Amino acid sequence: MHSDEQQIRQLVSTWMAATKTGDVETVLSLMADDAVFLIAGRPPMRKADFAAAARAQARGDAPAFDGTSDIQEIRVIGDWAFLWQKLTVTAVAPDGAAPVTRAGHTLTIFERQNGKWVLARDANMLAPIEK
Amino acid sequence: MHSDEQQIRQLVSTWMAATKTGDVETVLSLMADDAVFLIAGRPPMRKADFAAAARAQARGDAPAFDGTSDIQEIRVIGDWAFLWQKLTVTAVAPDGAAPVTRAGHTLTIFERQNGKWVLARDANMLAPIEK
Repeated sequence: MHSDEQQIRQLVSTWMAATKTGDVETVLSLMADDAVFLIAGRPPMRKADFAAAARAQARGDAPAFDGTSDIQEIRVIGDWAFLWQKLTVTAVAPDGAAPVTRAGHTLTIFERQNGKWVLARDANMLAPIEK
Repeated sequence: MHSDEQQIRQLVSTWMAATKTGDVETVLSLMADDAVFLIAGRPPMRKADFAAAARAQARGDAPAFDGTSDIQEIRVIGDWAFLWQKLTVTAVAPDGAAPVTRAGHTLTIFERQNGKWVLARDANMLAPIEK
């Protein structure tokens, strides 16, 4: 497997593990400063918005997130790359409410900055699914 | 403006005009043979699926589509490019039912093949909006 592809797969794994443990700083270290997150029904979210939301979540009685990623394609083009994956994320609220699972695809663009791959643009098409 | 960027903007304009007039063959000529369309709540759609759906729509009493595109960013990387835009699409059914408007973002990847830019991957995050 191409080394760049391995590094991008590792980035996705690290991102998901850090999300699961609420390690906001690690997640932030994996994205570009000009990262943009696109999701249906919401305005584009920038890194500062992401950081504020993630830190608020980590402080409070936030749901625990766990997920599985099934990468369908990774294409590396010089210092840029794109990936699409099937992603399933389950949120478990601390109050004992029923877990909520969302599933669907993401299309994600990465950039190599100073030799390190980071997330640059992300399109999130996850939708709630019945358990 | 960079010539590649101009060509990609023209592709988007041509795509939208051809969609409006139901010119399926023109739309198909603007995408790669391995194009993938991602949308929430649906499996990935390939070019053959897109063609079948668009031709069925063009034959029948299909809604008329009209839209406006507000391109937020185009980045060209060699023979690849990505773009994200705010897109608003209104479908008017021939039976006189109220038009349905969907709005949101797309993140789209283009590839230059034989000197011509074509759509390669598309993430569609449009959601219904109240008029």
